[in-house]
Amino acid sequence: MRTQVGIIGAGPAGLMLSHLLHLRGIESIIIESRTREEIEGTIRAGVLEQGTVDLMNETGVGGRMMREGHFHHGIELRFNGRGHRIDVHELTEGKRVTVYAQHEVIKDLIDARLKAGGEIVFHVGEVSLHDLDTSSPKIRFRTNKNGECQELRCDFIAGCDGFHGPSRPSIPGRVRKEYQKRYPFGWLGILIEAPPSSPELIYANHERGFALVSTRSPEIQRMYLQVDPQDDIANWSDDRIWFELHERLSTRDGWTLIEGPIIQKNIVAMRSFVCEPMQYGRLFLAGDAAHIVPPTGAKGLNLAVADVQVLARALDAFYKSGKTEWLERYSETCLRRVWKAERFSWYMTSMLHRHHDHSPLERQLQLAELEYVTSSRAAATSLAENYVGLPMEW
Amino acid sequence: MRTQVGIIGAGPAGLMLSHLLHLRGIESIIIESRTREEIEGTIRAGVLEQGTVDLMNETGVGGRMMREGHFHHGIELRFNGRGHRIDVHELTEGKRVTVYAQHEVIKDLIDARLKAGGEIVFHVGEVSLHDLDTSSPKIRFRTNKNGECQELRCDFIAGCDGFHGPSRPSIPGRVRKEYQKRYPFGWLGILIEAPPSSPELIYANHERGFALVSTRSPEIQRMYLQVDPQDDIANWSDDRIWFELHERLSTRDGWTLIEGPIIQKNIVAMRSFVCEPMQYGRLFLAGDAAHIVPPTGAKGLNLAVADVQVLARALDAFYKSGKTEWLERYSETCLRRVWKAERFSWYMTSMLHRHHDHSPLERQLQLAELEYVTSSRAAATSLAENYVGLPMEW
Repeated sequence: MRTQVGIIGAGPAGLMLSHLLHLRGIESIIIESRTREEIEGTIRAGVLEQGTVDLMNETGVGGRMMREGHFHHGIELRFNGRGHRIDVHELTEGKRVTVYAQHEVIKDLIDARLKAGGEIVFHVGEVSLHDLDTSSPKIRFRTNKNGECQELRCDFIAGCDGFHGPSRPSIPGRVRKEYQKRYPFGWLGILIEAPPSSPELIYANHERGFALVSTRSPEIQRMYLQVDPQDDIANWSDDRIWFELHERLSTRDGWTLIEGPIIQKNIVAMRSFVCEPMQYGRLFLAGDAAHIVPPTGAKGLNLAVADVQVLARALDAFYKSGKTEWLERYSETCLRRVWKAERFSWYMTSMLHRHHDHSPLERQLQLAELEYVTSSRAAATSLAENYVGLPMEW
Repeated sequence: MRTQVGIIGAGPAGLMLSHLLHLRGIESIIIESRTREEIEGTIRAGVLEQGTVDLMNETGVGGRMMREGHFHHGIELRFNGRGHRIDVHELTEGKRVTVYAQHEVIKDLIDARLKAGGEIVFHVGEVSLHDLDTSSPKIRFRTNKNGECQELRCDFIAGCDGFHGPSRPSIPGRVRKEYQKRYPFGWLGILIEAPPSSPELIYANHERGFALVSTRSPEIQRMYLQVDPQDDIANWSDDRIWFELHERLSTRDGWTLIEGPIIQKNIVAMRSFVCEPMQYGRLFLAGDAAHIVPPTGAKGLNLAVADVQVLARALDAFYKSGKTEWLERYSETCLRRVWKAERFSWYMTSMLHRHHDHSPLERQLQLAELEYVTSSRAAATSLAENYVGLPMEW
């Protein structure tokens, strides 16, 4: 097999890259270790930045998102028993976020790729990367997990295979620096069958811990509780979950949490992670393969989409005019903005979670941060501009 | 002796309070443990917020400050070998800070009080507070440190006697909550005989630690280096100090550090501290007696001046109309703004110092914070509005 750009991973990064390359007349093949059903069926959150939404619309994959997504013009920060709205739309001169789940984005992109004749090889096994420092790198894999060996020869490889994929470890350790922080928080996430409790997301900082009221659809809601990342979901009965949600979201403003059957629950840990550089020879990492953010800022998917915009433009310049400068500067270009998103995700996480190692003064400083950000237009604007997504830095 | 308001401490808080009360026709007597010469001769930094400057001008004590002070319209944040100017004046719609040393403010206030017939008893000893929960509290002290015992009877006591004074400990422990954080940083401060190296303050974050280029007058400059707070000044030869200043302030922008004879050097530790409440019965704490900030935000003197503005207004309302509500809410009123200044001082300190316990990721997040605050107008505005002073919250 041979293509121009071999893409490992059919997540948002890999699929969007393949889509963007196609629109520029560049061929690609995606290989993916999971089946199509698995990918499309794994329910994931999705808060899309304005730039992500704009890109989907401009490239013709935004139709269903515009019909089924929910447009949020603000968020609520809740602490000390009161809610404070950040009017994101007004503070960013008309930008907003779109709540549209990641697996829906994936479905739309798979659909577009297949309709355009794109090739996605699902359910591959034993993926390995070769000859990255030559002009004809190769990806080897087995079809159907344990089937036939294949070799995909290409000009470039895009490693869009997430945190645990084989791409990043294929960059030699001597040139790769990994930055990591694990948080002492986990998120217990639930899906419930109920109408929304709030038209906008509620981020609550409470003595008992963080809580988040999100939404999925008019019938299905998503909520989260800060828990110990080592905790066992078996310790969390539905009653206990509802008790904690009611406590942490309690307010003097007369708001009601709408309950419903809990149809899914799980606990995820949180980390910040960055790999520098994001490229080696003819390999380019994008999305979670290169960086992880804690979910509090809702930046993960958006960073993946930003990376592949930079990469698609650089590959286009290479194929159109032989220009290598943008490819050479890919990592540097992405990382400037990635670090700002890492900063924002850390900031939101730090501000909103209960830190059990905080001294009483540090706890007061955290509440002062919330008081300040909800009372200063400049500080609220700073939060809002990050929430809708900082401008691309080309 | 008897007066309406007994004031302990002739620092900026006590002197400004006495001055404000005098303008409202309320009598006060200040007692102070140091001599006038000591107070006026202790060289202290001074970066005055716009509100502090406005108050001094409005109350007739700003003349010399306007002639001899230096008006700064911006600051420089320097990191990764480059300077980035925060245009404070433009970002805050015309506000600025005034560099005018604290001991000069003190001289002007002492001069004004004495000219107006105000009474300041210097060099007292064994100060103690009594009957705070009655309507006639008393201050006892000895004149000339070990001389005659005196009792000052008054309607109210203002504890403006700094972090180590007797006022705060006179609030019973059961009603007093103290918040404290000690930083693992100290500032080595020097005074040098040289012209200014920069027209504006330079705050530098360098791998080797924080450095600050400040100014005192056209002939005398003030500079600081982050050091271990336990370090002995004897370990710091002039050569070593200059070496560190040159290293930490090095830039690719073609700037030159102007050297000169070092005429004073010392090391100070840094802490954040807040006492809640700031009042008990007829005792009201103001300034450092109630709260300490690390010096990075230049907020100490300004917070003291803000406190006594709140107190003077509340006392005025009491004497004019018997209204006690503002006195009762004194602590609550002050603390809302105090905590925001504590937050800002902590933020500036955290952002600018080298944390030796930071992981590589945390170090990158710190640099990302600096990159962000110097590239986002909203974030720079947030920094600037705090630097010139948040609005009073009455």
